[in-house]
Amino acid sequence: MTADPRFSLNQWTTRHWPLPDLVSGCVSAGVRGVGLWREPVAEYGLERTAKLVRDSGLKVTSLCRGGFFQQEGALAENRRAIEEAAALEAPALVLVSGGLPDGSRDIDGARSRVADALAELAPYAGEHGVQLAIEPLHPMFASDRCVVSTLGQALDLAAPHPAGQVGVVVDTYHLWWDPAAYDGIARAGREGRIAAFQVADWTTPLPEGVLVGRGMLGDGCVELRRFREAVEAAGYTGPIEVEIFNEELWAMPGRDALALTLSRFAEHVL
Amino acid sequence: MTADPRFSLNQWTTRHWPLPDLVSGCVSAGVRGVGLWREPVAEYGLERTAKLVRDSGLKVTSLCRGGFFQQEGALAENRRAIEEAAALEAPALVLVSGGLPDGSRDIDGARSRVADALAELAPYAGEHGVQLAIEPLHPMFASDRCVVSTLGQALDLAAPHPAGQVGVVVDTYHLWWDPAAYDGIARAGREGRIAAFQVADWTTPLPEGVLVGRGMLGDGCVELRRFREAVEAAGYTGPIEVEIFNEELWAMPGRDALALTLSRFAEHVL
Repeated sequence: MTADPRFSLNQWTTRHWPLPDLVSGCVSAGVRGVGLWREPVAEYGLERTAKLVRDSGLKVTSLCRGGFFQQEGALAENRRAIEEAAALEAPALVLVSGGLPDGSRDIDGARSRVADALAELAPYAGEHGVQLAIEPLHPMFASDRCVVSTLGQALDLAAPHPAGQVGVVVDTYHLWWDPAAYDGIARAGREGRIAAFQVADWTTPLPEGVLVGRGMLGDGCVELRRFREAVEAAGYTGPIEVEIFNEELWAMPGRDALALTLSRFAEHVL
Repeated sequence: MTADPRFSLNQWTTRHWPLPDLVSGCVSAGVRGVGLWREPVAEYGLERTAKLVRDSGLKVTSLCRGGFFQQEGALAENRRAIEEAAALEAPALVLVSGGLPDGSRDIDGARSRVADALAELAPYAGEHGVQLAIEPLHPMFASDRCVVSTLGQALDLAAPHPAGQVGVVVDTYHLWWDPAAYDGIARAGREGRIAAFQVADWTTPLPEGVLVGRGMLGDGCVELRRFREAVEAAGYTGPIEVEIFNEELWAMPGRDALALTLSRFAEHVL
């Protein structure tokens, strides 16, 4: 099958697939976009990755990820991430805000720190032609990964900044439960802030640690097509990244995982 | 130590403690309230439990639980739960709405069904002097346990009904991450709908299945005292139930688990 032109493979969906194989596998399958991660990009080499991807004709749809603002040196690290996104010609740098500092109970303080960090970084992102994409993560990650838990909250954090500098990520896995999700998508569209749209399904039981329990498209209870239609109705016409953290998928050869993902995408998202 | 007069032990915190031992243990410790569960009450016998508790001088602060409206026969089952709450002189029946029916992706439909069930049950609860207490559960339970995920949503569901018939549960474990939690508490107070206040702490990593990962008071990142002050500022002066699902706590003798809970309550909630 030829991939839908909006389909983008987030690298973490096939995380053990070496970059050159991933790139050639995507090209063979007719995929036009990939979402990359900083660690494997650094391992392969930033300039080398940029050339590999550019020469293949693929577009980098986003770079994961900046954020983790509770960590020491976070601003410098995020500036480097912005530079890397620019080098890869990725339009958006996904930001996962980070959780609470060790031993802290001050969630309001942690959220303020995100706002402060955005104020520092937004102009730098703008100078590099990169949009910061605030990703609200499911509330089960609020303490250890991301104090930004809803789309409304992400939009409030983005509001002080030009939309070209700061947008939001709409990820079905993180938002599907929220009674305000569709209102949030409509608002994000009105404000021109949908920087990325990512899809994964929700399945239970969740595994220990809950990080790698995301479901293959169609295996869970998320109204994936309704989300796609909602972002489209909000004016978003950009790539649809499939980002699934799932041990079973990671155990498959990259080419097979991509084929399964493409087939499920056609069946459940389009 | 003598327990604070507002302290109430939810039975599931010491779930393996036989009822007569739990009752005498609470009395010895100066505890004045217990939150009971339908299954152990049925096992011991409803009338026998009512007499045991009444004779001890303890008050039943709530009965857990009704709800699970996606199941067949749910309305009849909930009417029985209301009758049981009345027999135990429990002022509130905690409702956990239930998740999505097997194979369903229709979360809006499931939420509508909760509203319909409340309309059926609220007058019956009123006739029995029992307040239905809608409990929003953490969004990580939205698919399999409870499609009511935020306090705001619970209050919207309660709104069509008299406050004496339908209220909400404020549980720190489920709500701590919500940027709108404190606004929700203020609103719940204004609307006279705080039917129960329950405390547990949030710790990570979450265990497989995530149900039994609640933290002992003080072990996690929840601002427990801030929550207590918020419900008080909202006008709530009722019992404070400690409800912790935690394997380590369950492995302790009931008396020791209660002593630890009381000491942590004094340190972190009062």
